[in-house]
Amino acid sequence: MDIKEIGEFGLIDKIDKIVYRKDKKLVASIGDDCAAFKIGGTKIGLLTTDSLVEDIHFKLKCTSPYDLGYKSIIASISDIASMAGVPLYCLVSLILPDYITVEFVQSFYRGAKTACNKYGCLIAGGDISGSHTNFSLNVSIYGESQQKLLRKRSEAKVGDLIFVTGPLGGSAAGLELLLKPETKASVSTYSKLTKKHLRPEAKVAEGLLASKNGATAMEDISDGLVGEVAHICEQSKIGAIIYVDKVPVDESIKRVDSLKTKAMELALSGGEDYELVFSCPKRKTASLAKAFNKKNLPLFEVGEITKGNRVKVLHNKEKEIKLKGYEHF
Amino acid sequence: MDIKEIGEFGLIDKIDKIVYRKDKKLVASIGDDCAAFKIGGTKIGLLTTDSLVEDIHFKLKCTSPYDLGYKSIIASISDIASMAGVPLYCLVSLILPDYITVEFVQSFYRGAKTACNKYGCLIAGGDISGSHTNFSLNVSIYGESQQKLLRKRSEAKVGDLIFVTGPLGGSAAGLELLLKPETKASVSTYSKLTKKHLRPEAKVAEGLLASKNGATAMEDISDGLVGEVAHICEQSKIGAIIYVDKVPVDESIKRVDSLKTKAMELALSGGEDYELVFSCPKRKTASLAKAFNKKNLPLFEVGEITKGNRVKVLHNKEKEIKLKGYEHF
Repeated sequence: MDIKEIGEFGLIDKIDKIVYRKDKKLVASIGDDCAAFKIGGTKIGLLTTDSLVEDIHFKLKCTSPYDLGYKSIIASISDIASMAGVPLYCLVSLILPDYITVEFVQSFYRGAKTACNKYGCLIAGGDISGSHTNFSLNVSIYGESQQKLLRKRSEAKVGDLIFVTGPLGGSAAGLELLLKPETKASVSTYSKLTKKHLRPEAKVAEGLLASKNGATAMEDISDGLVGEVAHICEQSKIGAIIYVDKVPVDESIKRVDSLKTKAMELALSGGEDYELVFSCPKRKTASLAKAFNKKNLPLFEVGEITKGNRVKVLHNKEKEIKLKGYEHF
Repeated sequence: MDIKEIGEFGLIDKIDKIVYRKDKKLVASIGDDCAAFKIGGTKIGLLTTDSLVEDIHFKLKCTSPYDLGYKSIIASISDIASMAGVPLYCLVSLILPDYITVEFVQSFYRGAKTACNKYGCLIAGGDISGSHTNFSLNVSIYGESQQKLLRKRSEAKVGDLIFVTGPLGGSAAGLELLLKPETKASVSTYSKLTKKHLRPEAKVAEGLLASKNGATAMEDISDGLVGEVAHICEQSKIGAIIYVDKVPVDESIKRVDSLKTKAMELALSGGEDYELVFSCPKRKTASLAKAFNKKNLPLFEVGEITKGNRVKVLHNKEKEIKLKGYEHF
């Protein structure tokens, strides 16, 4: 059977059926952003892995090796952040075709190190292989959390409100500018949006803060807000409403004539913003907002967990809008 | 600069210069089989990653998906074994071109699970991506050891004897039989040697036992005995002698007419046997041998750590033989 017929999530279900084994130390596995396991006392070890493939996840014509190194690390640190963890050690595995030079690899690692340094993570090893075809790489990161802080996708409850940690759509808009350099945009807008795409930040502090202040389920936005909320719904066996007028759209997008009409679409389904989305019981939202405010960190309420098994995207609490890709079930 | 000009190890040196940062919790990193770090008390966390690329590390025409899954896991468990660790959690990342079917992936995971089950390791997650070119995969494994048991490549001392945990060359011979199916061999010999290649074992118990009984530096034999001893020499800044007549050659190789003349070459430089090679001070070798004997585990003394920075391969303690690939410095 072609994998296309059942899709990525259909395949993951089939894999889960084969590999699943109950284990009292393993507290999160397939279905969450990281594997999470008890390592002694109240400490939790976190492990995440991500492969990035040339021409699928990145194009060398619009990504410098430095940016690629930087962003590959951020994508994995973001997975650790979404489990309320702190990244500690990182392994990088490179599969190198002969058009990748020594200088490329050095620049890649300088970018990777910059990202690691920013979050207190160390590059502790890796692997290098040749390739007869294209360039790909894998980043695995080990991090740690605490049992009481760990947040999984399966713990959202009906009535919880949904929050995001920052404006969305900037990364997807940045990618459009990089792919279509003829697009008209001011230098400052171009620079802001492409930076969102090439040099994103991982929300480690935000993940910890959300978790300490009542977050129930949490996830990083790597595949678009609606898709990520759909993952939470699937794992928590609930539904959700996203109120379009509450979703924070990256302001810079509106300054690009050719993008402003689809700014909301980019905010709802554009990937790689690496903000966090999480659910929180209503009674805890006041203290949550206070905690974020005190640290001067942005926080936006965007929706609500409901009964059912669908993500509804509502405009002005009245009109349900249906857009391609918004409903994953 | 082309990577070919400086080779894999030249490139790793350059990467090490960029990423190196002293850290008191990180006790092993680039240069060892695993990253090793303190996780609390006397416990050590171990992390290893390995990418395997179609037509570089494996050929689908002579590896079933089940065997590929099995062996990919063993290769990484073997890295954990070489640090005297126990494998615990495994993440598998697959990069899948469209000729890989759902049934292939299922069979791959059945093999991977068999290998994991054998060593008490759990598949705890992973990642799936598409590929426009060929098939590749990455396995990352988290394991644990104890501070006093951890063995690194850099701790061999002049005068230590060198041991291996089993006969060598079988895997390389098995690969030759798989690649040249016209080779004459009895069914039983063919089956034994190809099994050595396709279904190797990881020496987890042996790694722990060696470490508890005096091993100083340790490594798994994934790239051939002489090459691995060379790694120990480089990291420990010493030399070594391997006595050819002491090296245990897989007996089955001698039963294949076309291979028997190069049986010793396969044992010295054939890869993927996944036996362990380690150094041990002379005064501890009697108790070491006793411990292995008590558990009915094989152990072979094959050489000695010396001053200098070369691996010498000696025949009958007299004649130094030089063979291509034997001296890595």
